[in-house]
Amino acid sequence: MYDLLKGLRIVEGSSFIAAPSCGLHLLQLGAEVIRFDNIGGGPDFRRWPLAPNGLSFYWEGLNKGKKSIAIDLTRPEGRELAVTLATAPGKDGGIFLTNFPVGGFLAHDKLAARRADMISVRVMGWADGTTGVDYTVNAAFGYPYLTGPSDQTAPVNHIMPSWDLLTGASAAYSLLAAERYRRETGKGQEVRLPLGDVAMATLSHLGQVAEVLTSGADRPRMGNDIFGAFGRDFLTRDGKRVMVVAITPRQWTGMLKGFGLTEKVAALEAELGVTFAKDEGIRFAHRHRLFPLIEAAIATRTQAECGKLFDESDICWGPYQSVHEAVTEGPHFKNSPLFAEASHPSGHTYPTSGPAPSFLGLDRGAAGSAPKLGQHTDEVLSGVLGLSSGEIGKLHDQKVVAGPEK
Amino acid sequence: MYDLLKGLRIVEGSSFIAAPSCGLHLLQLGAEVIRFDNIGGGPDFRRWPLAPNGLSFYWEGLNKGKKSIAIDLTRPEGRELAVTLATAPGKDGGIFLTNFPVGGFLAHDKLAARRADMISVRVMGWADGTTGVDYTVNAAFGYPYLTGPSDQTAPVNHIMPSWDLLTGASAAYSLLAAERYRRETGKGQEVRLPLGDVAMATLSHLGQVAEVLTSGADRPRMGNDIFGAFGRDFLTRDGKRVMVVAITPRQWTGMLKGFGLTEKVAALEAELGVTFAKDEGIRFAHRHRLFPLIEAAIATRTQAECGKLFDESDICWGPYQSVHEAVTEGPHFKNSPLFAEASHPSGHTYPTSGPAPSFLGLDRGAAGSAPKLGQHTDEVLSGVLGLSSGEIGKLHDQKVVAGPEK
Repeated sequence: MYDLLKGLRIVEGSSFIAAPSCGLHLLQLGAEVIRFDNIGGGPDFRRWPLAPNGLSFYWEGLNKGKKSIAIDLTRPEGRELAVTLATAPGKDGGIFLTNFPVGGFLAHDKLAARRADMISVRVMGWADGTTGVDYTVNAAFGYPYLTGPSDQTAPVNHIMPSWDLLTGASAAYSLLAAERYRRETGKGQEVRLPLGDVAMATLSHLGQVAEVLTSGADRPRMGNDIFGAFGRDFLTRDGKRVMVVAITPRQWTGMLKGFGLTEKVAALEAELGVTFAKDEGIRFAHRHRLFPLIEAAIATRTQAECGKLFDESDICWGPYQSVHEAVTEGPHFKNSPLFAEASHPSGHTYPTSGPAPSFLGLDRGAAGSAPKLGQHTDEVLSGVLGLSSGEIGKLHDQKVVAGPEK
Repeated sequence: MYDLLKGLRIVEGSSFIAAPSCGLHLLQLGAEVIRFDNIGGGPDFRRWPLAPNGLSFYWEGLNKGKKSIAIDLTRPEGRELAVTLATAPGKDGGIFLTNFPVGGFLAHDKLAARRADMISVRVMGWADGTTGVDYTVNAAFGYPYLTGPSDQTAPVNHIMPSWDLLTGASAAYSLLAAERYRRETGKGQEVRLPLGDVAMATLSHLGQVAEVLTSGADRPRMGNDIFGAFGRDFLTRDGKRVMVVAITPRQWTGMLKGFGLTEKVAALEAELGVTFAKDEGIRFAHRHRLFPLIEAAIATRTQAECGKLFDESDICWGPYQSVHEAVTEGPHFKNSPLFAEASHPSGHTYPTSGPAPSFLGLDRGAAGSAPKLGQHTDEVLSGVLGLSSGEIGKLHDQKVVAGPEK
């Protein structure tokens, strides 16, 4: 963990992917993130993939490095404790990250009544407060009908939880922007970040809203062909796959030269009366004439032979790998400074990633382990809320809080 | 655009999705973002989807609201101008956002030699500087073999440029973290954000690195079934599709009640000796017994009938829509405060999105239009670099800079 955000304290009451990933990103840049967890865990505490002991690798991954205080959130005393924690004093405190509902005991106005400069960052499904998750938001906005083989009629969902992840990273920059604003003006803020709004804004940012409104239609589904440019997956002689992309003019001429296709493509240009070199749209429009040439060239080579040729020719390409292959065989994980071994509550020790961004010249630090539920209950009650050991003992006796499970 | 980041000045030398989307996010929260564009446009200036006049909806979407200064970056005088702009004085300046190569005339050390507290945020393909784009990074890390129908053997690429988008939002929080650090310590920073590192960190955060290392294998491809929970797409009587998800216990019991399946599922539980209500993993493990019950219930209803029933029953669901349907018919775009009509260089006026995050109590402002190339050349040369009209005229005469195309 880097120390850029050292001192910043974020209280997190969250589950699933988006909100926890926001906390994780900021934690890995140096913020202190204190999760309050329901005693026994929230709705995602046992989410697959699971370790043999029943704990969740997923939960461990998203909450590594965070502090956990376990509270009975069904009782008024527990809820009071969560609110007190979120609104605790300190110029770098008073930041609450959550996917709890807009109303209820963690509503922003209730927190702001305790601390006027409160910042709440709230991940939601839909802006109107109705339930939405990555899968239903994704269904609503068209990508499943654009993804997958062109002969498919059924929708194809993404497996990567893209809207959750994008919302989590967006929550992180929103939180830092709100905190910067508070430093300048003293004003708190409620920030709401619905997955549905992230998806709508994305379709605008990528030009797709303008595209369907001006064309009056959807673009066709086209498998792995890259829209508007040259690229697709190709099958190698040894039955493997490679993704080949030529977006820039240099990538295009490099590819033709590498495969010895310069003359054949020149003949095709003459036949069609077009020039491919400087217009990726032209390459896309005539891709059904170009693909067979590349297919034939790749089908006579193994994936390894292709790789050698591609690298020598400045071609933008990549082998397809499964997750297991990528983690155990591929070149990327092996030497990555992002990863370090860490031991987790699942009982497993495995390579664990710190932050994706690299801040050159700063110490990257350790990636950190996931907490046990309630591992930091006493530390937080004492250190943040200033409770005495007697008061802490009483909360345990009343089962308002719990320590780590043994 | 909000004004949270008012005064912050980011100079952007960027193309494609990741880096421009980072600039867009921060612009929409109030930063001033000045793009320098090669005269005639960078490699993505004509990227599809295109308007009939040949301008790119995609470029417009990612650069709306930014200022554009057009510079001949192939010449030393033009490069000097770009460096001078990136390193211009002012406490909220000296921030450069780019996907230009690590070395070359925009290398961080060259900028830092001009301005010691320089912040560079650099989006890359791979950490070692080799070329990688969303498509090849995606191929390397396994999702294409997990996505798509279970009877597929070929990889299925995502159509949403998920790694680019996630990297862009991650660059935005990294930039704000670096700027916060500079305010506290006076120190600049080079931040590097390779798509490949974002992907590797994501596989760790989601528990997938631990999963494949401890299991020794990949999880199988399973179409639209949600891994480890209950959910899939279902076909309605009128040939449409709905995504149905039951993750929480409440969603599960709501769904059974809504379909009148409580007794049938209880009988199935008795037969299998399991309880579905509190363990989404159990629902997943036995999904092939559960799915036919839901299939039958949905197949007798139209999509509209399903929707009414689902909403009444607290079921988490969503209709599948194409992009065109979502934008023109669905409920979400219609009333969204994110969108406002804006006129763009493509000659089209269309609903254009401001920021996805909502800061309650702050004025959302206008979404803004994309600039013409060089639209702000004179304004930036005069306002930021303090050049006289004579000096500016000379740069035009020498064709080092260009104004907006007429």
